[in-house]
Amino acid sequence: MELKKYKRSEDYSGWYNYIVENADLAEHAAVKGCMVIKPYGFAIWEKMQQELDKRFKDTGHSNAYFPLFIPKSLFEAEEKNAEGFAKECAVVTHYRLKTDPNNKGKLIVDPDAKLTEELVVRPTSEAIIWNTYKGWIKSYRDLPILLNQWANVVRWEMRTRLFLRTTEFLWQEGHTAHATSEEAVSETKQMLEVYADFAENILAIPVIKGVKSANERFAGADDTYCIEGMMQDGKALQMGTSHFLGQNFAKAFDVKYLNKENKLEHVWATSWGVSTRLMGALIMVHSDDDGLVLPPKLAPIQVVIVPIFRSEEDLAKITETVNPIISQLKALGISVKFDNRDTQKPGFKFAEWELKGVPVRLAIGPRDIENGTIEVARRDTKEKMVVNLTDLNHKVQHLLEQIQINLYQKAIDYRAEKTSVADTWEEFCQNIEKGFVMAHWDGTPETEQEIKNKTKATIRCIPLENKLEEGKCILSGKPSNQRVVFSKAY
Amino acid sequence: MELKKYKRSEDYSGWYNYIVENADLAEHAAVKGCMVIKPYGFAIWEKMQQELDKRFKDTGHSNAYFPLFIPKSLFEAEEKNAEGFAKECAVVTHYRLKTDPNNKGKLIVDPDAKLTEELVVRPTSEAIIWNTYKGWIKSYRDLPILLNQWANVVRWEMRTRLFLRTTEFLWQEGHTAHATSEEAVSETKQMLEVYADFAENILAIPVIKGVKSANERFAGADDTYCIEGMMQDGKALQMGTSHFLGQNFAKAFDVKYLNKENKLEHVWATSWGVSTRLMGALIMVHSDDDGLVLPPKLAPIQVVIVPIFRSEEDLAKITETVNPIISQLKALGISVKFDNRDTQKPGFKFAEWELKGVPVRLAIGPRDIENGTIEVARRDTKEKMVVNLTDLNHKVQHLLEQIQINLYQKAIDYRAEKTSVADTWEEFCQNIEKGFVMAHWDGTPETEQEIKNKTKATIRCIPLENKLEEGKCILSGKPSNQRVVFSKAY
Repeated sequence: MELKKYKRSEDYSGWYNYIVENADLAEHAAVKGCMVIKPYGFAIWEKMQQELDKRFKDTGHSNAYFPLFIPKSLFEAEEKNAEGFAKECAVVTHYRLKTDPNNKGKLIVDPDAKLTEELVVRPTSEAIIWNTYKGWIKSYRDLPILLNQWANVVRWEMRTRLFLRTTEFLWQEGHTAHATSEEAVSETKQMLEVYADFAENILAIPVIKGVKSANERFAGADDTYCIEGMMQDGKALQMGTSHFLGQNFAKAFDVKYLNKENKLEHVWATSWGVSTRLMGALIMVHSDDDGLVLPPKLAPIQVVIVPIFRSEEDLAKITETVNPIISQLKALGISVKFDNRDTQKPGFKFAEWELKGVPVRLAIGPRDIENGTIEVARRDTKEKMVVNLTDLNHKVQHLLEQIQINLYQKAIDYRAEKTSVADTWEEFCQNIEKGFVMAHWDGTPETEQEIKNKTKATIRCIPLENKLEEGKCILSGKPSNQRVVFSKAY
Repeated sequence: MELKKYKRSEDYSGWYNYIVENADLAEHAAVKGCMVIKPYGFAIWEKMQQELDKRFKDTGHSNAYFPLFIPKSLFEAEEKNAEGFAKECAVVTHYRLKTDPNNKGKLIVDPDAKLTEELVVRPTSEAIIWNTYKGWIKSYRDLPILLNQWANVVRWEMRTRLFLRTTEFLWQEGHTAHATSEEAVSETKQMLEVYADFAENILAIPVIKGVKSANERFAGADDTYCIEGMMQDGKALQMGTSHFLGQNFAKAFDVKYLNKENKLEHVWATSWGVSTRLMGALIMVHSDDDGLVLPPKLAPIQVVIVPIFRSEEDLAKITETVNPIISQLKALGISVKFDNRDTQKPGFKFAEWELKGVPVRLAIGPRDIENGTIEVARRDTKEKMVVNLTDLNHKVQHLLEQIQINLYQKAIDYRAEKTSVADTWEEFCQNIEKGFVMAHWDGTPETEQEIKNKTKATIRCIPLENKLEEGKCILSGKPSNQRVVFSKAY
């Protein structure tokens, strides 16, 4: 393990990759664009899943599972959706391999096992799910349907980055069916709130809730709501989306229900998702030049204990003192690791656990035992303090709560510092290099596209909690009644 | 919903399909051979996952995630494994669709987007994982690696049945790496014990633990251990396998480690898995002609309460009595559903919840409230009793425990009844139609194959807890020192 090779300020992208690989979160797989999620990284993802799954169930949703493959004829039924994803689809064309007659021990695709209809590996599941819902929905009594699935999806990406953009990724996708437009819109907004709550309270990342402009909308949606976070290079990352799909999929798959007045109507739909991309956000928002910084609520190891010892007797004595501490912390629901390896020195261990982002480190040696004390170090601020063993466990518990709050507050402050208001094109161009810019826009896709061409910045969203205010479009000078969030983005 | 259309004794396979589809467990998907796992079925699978995942973690394993796609050149590296799965591989050959120039609104596979190397959709992940482990293992200090992944896999099956054999299915696959053969064998056996414990204590299905004969071994394994259960038609179902892979994959992928004596050695491997096939076992072992019967430990709804009412006032009064009962049961960790629909009659509800296998049904009407009583019905034996409301909650808790035990005992008794010992070929042929037959076998693949050709029965396993006993092979008459389990199987 090499340590501290990268500085955020000098090589942001190198710093990011270094942390992902060296904190044992993920690595590139032998398959182009795909990743292996390593156990430590996967443990963080599992914690995210648990928190999200609980929130989905608390809001009345159940999990189900739909097939990985979508027959091409179903995939193309909703035209906008199909068009939006066609360019990035992995396609299964054959169902058998056979021995290569010219090359012993090698296999070739069996030309006799060509599928009559090609299968698309799901890039998203609206098509296969709405084709299934057709069989489930007859009357208003069958509605709403409130389902979610945890799954892998594949989108063939030309430029990939671990967690942020990979050919295969893990996600959850909610798919709901409703009797009315109002109910579907309200579901769309509810799930946006669920995502925002999760981002702020668990990931400790402040987000702007908003609606996408037409250019940035999900292919097949009438409206796309999103949460946007700011990374430490000032760029935006879309962290979750919730789509109001109108009747587009119901019409494409002919899904109708008999309403209370006994009339047939098309069903209304939503879909919403977050993915392993959130791992990228988590890393980029909180980490520093020493490595990963994890919010306590997602840390697989919340407290690491490093013994300082020269002899085996020292270690035995320390272990005797540490064992009841471990039990007490575990009883408070805190996950603890006692790093008693004799193959590494304390300095190495300190650096390693810093790199892995463990929120609280305890260090204890023979002199501490004599004094009845222990050294407590927090990962976020690097502060150290000496604490009496007698009140250690509640101090640690309190500290974990404080770290969670501090990380969120730091991220809020950083975002405030990097967010500016621009009223002229010059101001806009200067400030957009720094972070988010709140500016007026004339509401046309053409202007948005031109701004993107000139600056690489896009409209991240039209904030939901916007106050209306008269102004002029930053580029065209045409009238506008609210500011939108511009930024460069991942 | 049509009820009780099938009898096990008359149409076992129709009965099975009827329950799967009508108890809302799963249905056929639009993709040939694939299934949609419906919310009620998925909730049972989630409970299985939780129980298994806890056991994996308690035995020191972590979860991780490896790619869905395996480049063909990696897939073919371990020859026996590749040969074993080649005939059932879905293959991705292209990464893009494009608009059909001759057919507006339709898509075709873009011939310009052909992959230079085809990708196999994983039928099992040894190849991609051992290719990854190569980068992780240098020294004995890096061992053991104890990982599991929850994933979807694809095996192109010509004849499929919901849960039992589907083209795509969900499973977990453990993949471990060890310094010594002994350690790997001990891991293989440990995971077999984990599966057996789960099967007996959670699924309430007794299993025979054993080793497969060479004919039935996993492609690429030195030894395959398995647990085998008996279904209600007397056939065997392989419910889980644990493979000792020897050094086969380490050699194929050149994975070596420096041992303590500083010498390079190949690593030893295991893999082990169970799948959504367990859902099929669960259904087939416990259910009856009225529908699904669920062991309480896996029931998404453990108790259903059906109010018997004519008027809204009746329902209001019942609800008032039922609400504290629900709270008390929930406080005991029991999941309860109050079925207060006014669109269905009690008789319909009774039948519906029986079909869905809810272990305990409570029914309460105005007269019960006057008497301070409630009717309690158990799903497994159909017994009904009238219970005082005052001691209801602990009675229900006790009843759930009893049902779990009773289902297991019933399955044990059934298996004993359908298991016989055969010493002559005539006895064998008679008894094999009924269930398991314990018989001597000369140990050769040829004899096993001939018995299969003649009777369709295979050796399910050589039981681990076998007592040695001199005898003669049922077919060849050659000497044998132990009986093995023969049966027809799914």
